[in-house]
Amino acid sequence: MREKHDENALVKRIERELRCSQRDSLTLALGDDGALWNAKQGHEIILTCDWFLEGSHFLRAKHPPDSVGWKCLARAVSDIAAMGGAPRCFLLSLALPSTLTGEWLQQFLGGLRRASRTLRCRLAGGDTTRQEKVLICVTVVGEVRKGSAALRSGARPGDILFVSGTLGEADLGLRQLRKQRGFARATNAALRKHLYPRPRVVLGQWLAQNRLATAMMDLSDGLSTDLPRLCAASGVGATICVASLPSTPLAKPADAANLALHGGDDYELLFAVSPSKRHRVPRQFHGVKLTDIGTIAAERKIVHTEKEKTSPLISRGWDPFRAR
Amino acid sequence: MREKHDENALVKRIERELRCSQRDSLTLALGDDGALWNAKQGHEIILTCDWFLEGSHFLRAKHPPDSVGWKCLARAVSDIAAMGGAPRCFLLSLALPSTLTGEWLQQFLGGLRRASRTLRCRLAGGDTTRQEKVLICVTVVGEVRKGSAALRSGARPGDILFVSGTLGEADLGLRQLRKQRGFARATNAALRKHLYPRPRVVLGQWLAQNRLATAMMDLSDGLSTDLPRLCAASGVGATICVASLPSTPLAKPADAANLALHGGDDYELLFAVSPSKRHRVPRQFHGVKLTDIGTIAAERKIVHTEKEKTSPLISRGWDPFRAR
Repeated sequence: MREKHDENALVKRIERELRCSQRDSLTLALGDDGALWNAKQGHEIILTCDWFLEGSHFLRAKHPPDSVGWKCLARAVSDIAAMGGAPRCFLLSLALPSTLTGEWLQQFLGGLRRASRTLRCRLAGGDTTRQEKVLICVTVVGEVRKGSAALRSGARPGDILFVSGTLGEADLGLRQLRKQRGFARATNAALRKHLYPRPRVVLGQWLAQNRLATAMMDLSDGLSTDLPRLCAASGVGATICVASLPSTPLAKPADAANLALHGGDDYELLFAVSPSKRHRVPRQFHGVKLTDIGTIAAERKIVHTEKEKTSPLISRGWDPFRAR
Repeated sequence: MREKHDENALVKRIERELRCSQRDSLTLALGDDGALWNAKQGHEIILTCDWFLEGSHFLRAKHPPDSVGWKCLARAVSDIAAMGGAPRCFLLSLALPSTLTGEWLQQFLGGLRRASRTLRCRLAGGDTTRQEKVLICVTVVGEVRKGSAALRSGARPGDILFVSGTLGEADLGLRQLRKQRGFARATNAALRKHLYPRPRVVLGQWLAQNRLATAMMDLSDGLSTDLPRLCAASGVGATICVASLPSTPLAKPADAANLALHGGDDYELLFAVSPSKRHRVPRQFHGVKLTDIGTIAAERKIVHTEKEKTSPLISRGWDPFRAR
């Protein structure tokens, strides 16, 4: 048993579970002080990291370990998608109670391996330690052709605001999960989106490569929290039309708009498009709906219109430093 | 007050404290979904990350916040030094109780800023959240000329083993810190080394550029834990001479050898040099002592000799998954 819990043995196990036959740009991964990686010529490197903590971002009693493994990588990759980049490799920092190094870890690594393969993002290295709670921090390294990254700061008055997919679905899934006993199962689209989100990597790359998005970000904390960030970075305001929001048909009609405005964890893309390029944005991209939800305004305030009434949009999304 | 604890405000404050006028290779840091960074041509990228957790790696009541800030970056940079690379930028993942966003955070950022400037490693981005305990995860990105990284795997039988600096000093500092009341102060070399370690970046680069080290790593968990890792990676064994270890004169003679063998947190470099190049290793490099402590052997066992007695070296360094 001692050997089983030993840090060297744990690292070897993670390595074995996530081994990948491709060598390509990763000269050396794991087993040394750092990973060695080669960037492509003519590309910029995107660096991003994300906490995924028991009690804050997932519940040990409710979230199946393979969902924890999938989601910790998927949400970090979503930041790469939001800049129009391609994910390349990741570092996994994992702190774990000794009691979870058996079956829990096995399933966690299974979910992580599936995400790693699906998202084409290889394990490069990491750090492990012991804690009473499960703590995860994932760093993802991505690439984007020089000068083509989509930033938050390029939105201009008159631009049209789009979102991908459906909003509020993941938050609805979280509500359903809280009501279930034991580990949640992905029995409908809302639970599936909460447990196994799919970052919009291909869409993000297409928008960036075709220079369609003047500004872009991913929706992780909810539209009402994230849109003000995009507007602040661009020095603009916005008007969004609540009736246009692609809300989830799984919610009661009375809840659907609120979920779409404030629900977190969707990992959809929010992007602005200049009016002259608007016709180049299809209604669907690879099966993912793209919806016009409003416009960018010169005046630095953010309002939403609902039943012909215009009112300021109050942030009510996820902010760990503010009571909800 | 609400605004003060708000995540956006916290990120802005970290950004302000660690602002750097240089633009250089970081096209875009902070304030977007990810950082954009340009690698140098002809170089490989080194990626590494390190946990630094309250209760495991530091004590909130004992470690001054500016030491926490310094050390969380310094120890991650040490992994870049261990491969012969130059640190370039870092991502800070910080989880904090709301009660520490005042003076504690200010001093933490002060220590981090000093480390960032001294080690020439700029803040590129990160993630913040709220937790009851202080959780830190630092990812460092470094560079090394293509093909010149020093790995753990190149040691060959007959190579001479060297270490930089003094061994066991940081662990002695930790013991002294545990006995003090309130925040520790760096009143001697042992406490200084424990609180404000200096990664051997210049030495690591010099050894790698001159192809002097056949294998290299940094000593973070103690010689008796780390040397077996270097030997395992190289498929070799080693004999070390206890009398040769550069132990600390600050410890009682009875403790000094044990501290040098098993004490963690020194962040010195352990490296192997082929006999034909041994004469090129000076006794001191930029004021840091370099000491021959033994040799690499073909047989895959690790022994230490003490008073003409040879015995197996038992790992008694830091391993979070093993009771000490």
